[in-house]
Amino acid sequence: MNLKIAVLPGDGIGPEVILQAKKALYAIGEVYNHEFVFEDALMGAVAIDKTGNPLPEQTLNLCLNTDAVLLGAIGDPKYDNNPNAKVRPEQGLLKLRKELGLFANIRPIKPYKALIEASPLKREIIEGADFTIFRELTGGAYFGTKTLNEEGTHASDLCEYSEEEITRIAHLAFKSAQKRRKKLTMVDKANVLETSRLWRKVVQNVSENYPDVKLDFLFVDNAAMQLILNPKQFDVILTENLFGDILSDEASVITGSIGLLPSVSLGEKNALFEPIHGSYPQAKGKNIANPIASILAAGLLLEHFGLTKEANVVYKAVEKAIEYKVVTVDLKPDSKFGTNEVGEFVSNFI
Amino acid sequence: MNLKIAVLPGDGIGPEVILQAKKALYAIGEVYNHEFVFEDALMGAVAIDKTGNPLPEQTLNLCLNTDAVLLGAIGDPKYDNNPNAKVRPEQGLLKLRKELGLFANIRPIKPYKALIEASPLKREIIEGADFTIFRELTGGAYFGTKTLNEEGTHASDLCEYSEEEITRIAHLAFKSAQKRRKKLTMVDKANVLETSRLWRKVVQNVSENYPDVKLDFLFVDNAAMQLILNPKQFDVILTENLFGDILSDEASVITGSIGLLPSVSLGEKNALFEPIHGSYPQAKGKNIANPIASILAAGLLLEHFGLTKEANVVYKAVEKAIEYKVVTVDLKPDSKFGTNEVGEFVSNFI
Ligand SMILES: CC(C)[C@H](C(=O)O)[C@@H](O)C(=O)O
Ligand SMILES: CC(C)[C@H](C(=O)O)[C@@H](O)C(=O)O
Repeated sequence: MNLKIAVLPGDGIGPEVILQAKKALYAIGEVYNHEFVFEDALMGAVAIDKTGNPLPEQTLNLCLNTDAVLLGAIGDPKYDNNPNAKVRPEQGLLKLRKELGLFANIRPIKPYKALIEASPLKREIIEGADFTIFRELTGGAYFGTKTLNEEGTHASDLCEYSEEEITRIAHLAFKSAQKRRKKLTMVDKANVLETSRLWRKVVQNVSENYPDVKLDFLFVDNAAMQLILNPKQFDVILTENLFGDILSDEASVITGSIGLLPSVSLGEKNALFEPIHGSYPQAKGKNIANPIASILAAGLLLEHFGLTKEANVVYKAVEKAIEYKVVTVDLKPDSKFGTNEVGEFVSNFI
Repeated sequence: MNLKIAVLPGDGIGPEVILQAKKALYAIGEVYNHEFVFEDALMGAVAIDKTGNPLPEQTLNLCLNTDAVLLGAIGDPKYDNNPNAKVRPEQGLLKLRKELGLFANIRPIKPYKALIEASPLKREIIEGADFTIFRELTGGAYFGTKTLNEEGTHASDLCEYSEEEITRIAHLAFKSAQKRRKKLTMVDKANVLETSRLWRKVVQNVSENYPDVKLDFLFVDNAAMQLILNPKQFDVILTENLFGDILSDEASVITGSIGLLPSVSLGEKNALFEPIHGSYPQAKGKNIANPIASILAAGLLLEHFGLTKEANVVYKAVEKAIEYKVVTVDLKPDSKFGTNEVGEFVSNFI
């Protein structure tokens, strides 16, 4: 297979971890005779620094015209505590999601056997947990009108959803549930929010096409609790953008480290693969960031293009790294292995 | 002391657990010579059923003219999955918060020694955790304009905040931090939301009055993760309404049961005390609901009126119940004790 992949290393530890993902893909390409052509481009704080624009035209065009996008991480604290910053790295990511129409972010959550002890949760709570979060990614408060009055004393964010936006991701989530344990949990705040009530109504309608999937509903406050009390109850979770942002980061604790979780964002035509962790600026350049989430993102990319065998080889290599404790300090405080060494181990194993 | 207390038992298990709180207050009154006069009123689904209104005029007037409100729980599933219901129990609670101007909801989180094992989190993670969440309660998406178009295919919720709304709760939170470990963590989503950026700016300004308090910021997705990874890092958490709703329920897992957590909601003139759990309709009338959160809410009420010694007697009695394992099934699966027995134990101990 021949794939053209846009690579956006981004900020902080992004470039270091993405490099390891590329190495894994190169190794797969060599062994299984595929050609992966990478083209790097700027996005995020690094793009602002160089061009003034968090998502330069050139980057967007590249992403629109490649088979897939591989993203590192976005964000720089120098923008976070400056409420007057007119341009922010995250705008690049949000614009990219919107322009590529990446309406569904999918995050599988499943603890590694060898890492059960790394979780703050007790073994009996997480052992056997295995679920996937479907987060709507191009709607809600992320993209609604924002206002700030002239005096800077009053602000607003509008959360909006349409039937169509809910329907398309609901179908994806139900289809996934059909291939899994046939349970879908819709998370919302329908006792307070109008958009949540619309979600409930539309999802109830869509569910009629999937009579074999059991649908239930949880309020988001309760869901945040249930994820920790009893994560095994979940199979597929479906939720809107902001709730999905919160719950999927929270759910990462089940696996012991956010450094282990990849995600894929899907649109009608495009797909973006990334680790779910942030840019972790304190770790930048120190060779301590965990590259596994990025490597697994590369695995999801392979799966997406039907290269299941190859994806499984990547997953296997990661499992071996974990089993042999070739992992970074987030997983083993006294580890001697860094970002590079873990990446090397994985690509050598392939 | 002489206190007139409006009691809103509400829905589901509300009446059962509130009865135990009343019993504790009666016992305190008898021993310490205070007169607590209770007046019950309707709110929630039970009020809709009897009057068509989730917060009848009479109930509101009573609450406006008493020293404090003691609330059970609100909510009934028959309204949750019916997106067309025009009246819902929660509207009563939201209206009450607004009319009484209860802008700050305060939830202390601290595990009981005897219950450390009941938490899904490992002992070393939660032992020593002790923080308080300040949740803004009368603003944000809860109270902004809501729309649904005629065809029922497009909905919106507006999240709004003003400098004034943020300032008043920020002062409360900083004052509390000064009396504690002098650390305040503001939780927001300032990389995406305009309201969050206003929160950050205003809280930064307010912080100048409290130079002894260390202020830091966390994005809500990260906060949802940090609460589980390392809850000991927190002292006072300050956040907006919806984030506070999610995070405080999530934080309840630290204590092992949501049935243990009370909260107080404060306004300029009024105060409302309640367990943070919901109406738990499946348990209604079964004598299995945990009354401790409600009894502790009564303790917070005593504290609020300066009756610190009396409040401590209540807390002590609850600790004894836990120590002697006179607790409900949520804390001890094979327990023979029910709502009533736990309540009796506590009031007898007073
Ligand atoms: C960086 C930020 C804008 C982003 C989000 O909130 O969507 C991130 O937290 C994520 O989940 O991908
Ligand atoms: C019942 C519901 C409206 C309420 C809220 O969301 O505020 C509850 O979850 C709470 O936290 O008191």
